[in-house]
Amino acid sequence: MLRNCLAGGRSILAETRQLITRAFREEFAYRRKADQSWVTEIDVAVERLVRDRLAQHYPGHGVVGEELAEQNRTAEFTWVIDPIDGTANLRHRIPLFGTILALFQHEQPVLGLIDIPLLDKLYSGGKGLGVWCNDRAVPSLDDSATADPCAFADELISLGGRSQFLAAGVPQFFDEMMGSHPYVLPYGDCFGHGLVIEGAFGAMADFDLRVWDVAAAQALVPEAGGKFLCWRQRGENPLEARYDVIFGRPRVVDWLAGRLP
Amino acid sequence: MLRNCLAGGRSILAETRQLITRAFREEFAYRRKADQSWVTEIDVAVERLVRDRLAQHYPGHGVVGEELAEQNRTAEFTWVIDPIDGTANLRHRIPLFGTILALFQHEQPVLGLIDIPLLDKLYSGGKGLGVWCNDRAVPSLDDSATADPCAFADELISLGGRSQFLAAGVPQFFDEMMGSHPYVLPYGDCFGHGLVIEGAFGAMADFDLRVWDVAAAQALVPEAGGKFLCWRQRGENPLEARYDVIFGRPRVVDWLAGRLP
Repeated sequence: MLRNCLAGGRSILAETRQLITRAFREEFAYRRKADQSWVTEIDVAVERLVRDRLAQHYPGHGVVGEELAEQNRTAEFTWVIDPIDGTANLRHRIPLFGTILALFQHEQPVLGLIDIPLLDKLYSGGKGLGVWCNDRAVPSLDDSATADPCAFADELISLGGRSQFLAAGVPQFFDEMMGSHPYVLPYGDCFGHGLVIEGAFGAMADFDLRVWDVAAAQALVPEAGGKFLCWRQRGENPLEARYDVIFGRPRVVDWLAGRLP
Repeated sequence: MLRNCLAGGRSILAETRQLITRAFREEFAYRRKADQSWVTEIDVAVERLVRDRLAQHYPGHGVVGEELAEQNRTAEFTWVIDPIDGTANLRHRIPLFGTILALFQHEQPVLGLIDIPLLDKLYSGGKGLGVWCNDRAVPSLDDSATADPCAFADELISLGGRSQFLAAGVPQFFDEMMGSHPYVLPYGDCFGHGLVIEGAFGAMADFDLRVWDVAAAQALVPEAGGKFLCWRQRGENPLEARYDVIFGRPRVVDWLAGRLP
């Protein structure tokens, strides 16, 4: 069942990639939403396409997405969609954005897919199925058995944008990391998530996220041998809540978490 | 003459792109240099290839590069090479790095080329020849005649890394920009330079650079209608000096420069 859904998700993302790659070269409309974040017509077209395909292939499943209304959310299986994660980049034609798709079973994420169309990278996998970057299994993120002391100063760390840490009430964590760590790169959104999954970043702290932002990483990182720490969930309803998360190689995650107030 | 050199530079970067794309997929050696920055065997192989080709095609020209010794620097025409700009990214297999090539005539940059191999982007152009991203002329960066007040808060701003501003003695400028501007993205090195040239970023402040880091942007930005401000040059010898520069759309550059101490 999960294997079938993973294949289905991959084939849907092959279609959305075509749509995005074509639309990215042309003019497209964009506007600000009530929360001041951007939405483009590409975001909406991608979410519609994903929902069409899910309705065809998995009619009994629930669907939750960033841009359109939720459907059948009490189903055992629910898909979560972020059609464009990193819309501010897309709007400025910076190729660091992607599409996130995840499957929840009984409110637990069991499959995750992140497609970065312009970089030709599809991260995908799920519970018991391994984690893949395109058609290669990613190396294990598990550093817990390493005898050497971890050289944290050599680790590349990714952070979300400062405004996310401000919204989460811990801007000083961002400022201290930027001021003290030699290799902090705020390559955010799912582009950053993918680089954690590949092992390029030791860990990423990404705060003030919605469920569709985090769902795929939450499924993929532990399956790749990494640690996914939900440092704080603000709000009880999973669809309304804000998530402050840290994920990556276990010892780097613990080290980062130890620097939080 | 310049047109011929531009064509020559493009053909050399087509070769280095092949070398880099192939080597990026394999294992490669890397080490820290005395200044703690990274160098990989790819950096050195690229610079050797560029120098070989320049020696064949332009035997009378001077050559200055990041990794190897200068040659014939008193010639009327001198090529400046940064084989890999963004080596820390390359070392971690993050595809945001590139090769910079520029031609100086009488110490003035007259041609600039920036190749981002993994993103399939070649920015190139020169004095009187226009500026191109792949085979399309880039839109003009000139905003000086715009009647509307510039909405600086809507402009995407790029900054180099905090350590660069610290080295230049103005870390507070970095901290204030990060803390106050809603769209600051530290997409540094030549990946950021290219995004300024394309118009995605309103402007970029990139500090504590060497001549091979800035030379191409210095040739391309004014030719594209933008402003290249050398806010400060620290050191008189151009090969030893550190450059603190701001470049992009003229009004955004002036606005950014106005926030410096």
